[in-house]
Amino acid sequence: MRYLLEHLAVIFGAATGALAARGKGIDWFGVVVLGLVTAVGGGTLRDVVLDVPVFWVEDHSFLISGIVAVTLTIGMGRFLDPSSRVFLITDAIFLAFVAMVGTQKTFSLHHPGTICVLFGVVTGVAGGIFRDVLLGEIPLVFRPHINLYATAAFLGSLTYLAAATLWPGQPTNLVIGAAVTLILRLAAIRWKLRLPVFHTEEGVA
Amino acid sequence: MRYLLEHLAVIFGAATGALAARGKGIDWFGVVVLGLVTAVGGGTLRDVVLDVPVFWVEDHSFLISGIVAVTLTIGMGRFLDPSSRVFLITDAIFLAFVAMVGTQKTFSLHHPGTICVLFGVVTGVAGGIFRDVLLGEIPLVFRPHINLYATAAFLGSLTYLAAATLWPGQPTNLVIGAAVTLILRLAAIRWKLRLPVFHTEEGVA
Amino acid sequence: MRYLLEHLAVIFGAATGALAARGKGIDWFGVVVLGLVTAVGGGTLRDVVLDVPVFWVEDHSFLISGIVAVTLTIGMGRFLDPSSRVFLITDAIFLAFVAMVGTQKTFSLHHPGTICVLFGVVTGVAGGIFRDVLLGEIPLVFRPHINLYATAAFLGSLTYLAAATLWPGQPTNLVIGAAVTLILRLAAIRWKLRLPVFHTEEGVA
Repeated sequence: MRYLLEHLAVIFGAATGALAARGKGIDWFGVVVLGLVTAVGGGTLRDVVLDVPVFWVEDHSFLISGIVAVTLTIGMGRFLDPSSRVFLITDAIFLAFVAMVGTQKTFSLHHPGTICVLFGVVTGVAGGIFRDVLLGEIPLVFRPHINLYATAAFLGSLTYLAAATLWPGQPTNLVIGAAVTLILRLAAIRWKLRLPVFHTEEGVA
Repeated sequence: MRYLLEHLAVIFGAATGALAARGKGIDWFGVVVLGLVTAVGGGTLRDVVLDVPVFWVEDHSFLISGIVAVTLTIGMGRFLDPSSRVFLITDAIFLAFVAMVGTQKTFSLHHPGTICVLFGVVTGVAGGIFRDVLLGEIPLVFRPHINLYATAAFLGSLTYLAAATLWPGQPTNLVIGAAVTLILRLAAIRWKLRLPVFHTEEGVA
Repeated sequence: MRYLLEHLAVIFGAATGALAARGKGIDWFGVVVLGLVTAVGGGTLRDVVLDVPVFWVEDHSFLISGIVAVTLTIGMGRFLDPSSRVFLITDAIFLAFVAMVGTQKTFSLHHPGTICVLFGVVTGVAGGIFRDVLLGEIPLVFRPHINLYATAAFLGSLTYLAAATLWPGQPTNLVIGAAVTLILRLAAIRWKLRLPVFHTEEGVA
């Protein structure tokens, strides 16, 4: 189950990287590099910090998935909605999958709950952060008036942990956690839900 | 002593991250992520490169310190000087503490002096670099006309190494090194001391 | 041979970092930090992900090379062509050397071909990416209308792998691969060769 989810995370991550590169004059090879960095960046950070073998070095079928996803995205590029909606939905799916994989992998290494949830959030947001920083943009998670981004990953990770404690070893736990993240993020985009921001002297920024 | 200093470094680092996020419309959760990245970013890089267990994975009380510091900074936000002075002083304290922890940890792993000083500087500047890059700003250390930033960390690390060679095992060595970094950086801000910059054809930039 | 090439890569990388910093008002110490990050950044990422000791922690003569290269570049700064040509050529040499070292090191650790080529490309482009992101610029590899950047590293890595399979253990294999990367990149700059870009709705961006 985690294996499947990790492949799906890589595929959606690579697609968001390619979509973000669209219309910026980046050549095909640059788009592949950006897609792969987005897709495996968060997981690489997680594995390096946890000091376990990096997942795509051990099993390079993840790289193939990523490259295929970038190629398909480029191919479908001309048929996609030019608005940012496709990008935001793809990114939400990516966030949900990658946060669950991060939480579950850390949990299976017997780390305490705080660390598991933290790695869920970090793995979830890191790939997108790399993508946005490399394109010279403010990462989605730090963008003004973002609609429950890191928060959605956090609550999804927490839900997974609760489920995994109640029903150990059930593969559906990952599905529940991913669903919580995805529904929260999509609902937040749809109805513009947000957390309060850090006040300035002049009031809310 | 290093344990205490590392906690203080995390606290001041998280505070600078939160202060830097102020007024940018970033939601509370994003501010926590940014504060933690600033606080533990440099130390994470250090531990990963030195191939030792990452400090906050081993002992997650550091994360609690960071989250508490971000929360307090948000809470105190409305009472703080809106100018950048509070930010620069907090950042100077963070620089001093984190550079000392970096130097001392590398030294205690029996690496040669060059590497110890380098890790002092790298750990010192890396957290702030992550913070600034994530907000789409030029990192303090590379900002035009910066007043002795990496230089202060370098001289403080060097001082610590000299002290640790003269008086091995004295916890006050860390205090001396941190004081040198902090005083140099604060004096440089106060009197606008700076190193020469890299010339351009048109003269000094 | 790899040892020599790695030193040369560090030297040219440090020089590109210093050149990129020119005229931006960054102080000497900041330029040294930027040069070192550029020079060793890609290799550090490679070694951390492959979970082998980081090359400059094991042998700090690489750091000395980098610092000397930055110092010489600063010293020669006033005699250099103020245009960007010197920078692009230095960067092309750096790309060629560092891509070969990355491919060969991964190959010597008995990783499969996909991973070797990937590490060639990643090590090749990562140092330059760090340099450009830290200065708040779009990395060369993602710049609109870039002339065969990641592509040149990719084809050079592939050439090296082919050569290393045909004539195992020949040090000239690295020279052949580096030459392919360098000639491709320089030819692409000279004749403005490029790959297609990712289409937008309005046609080619």
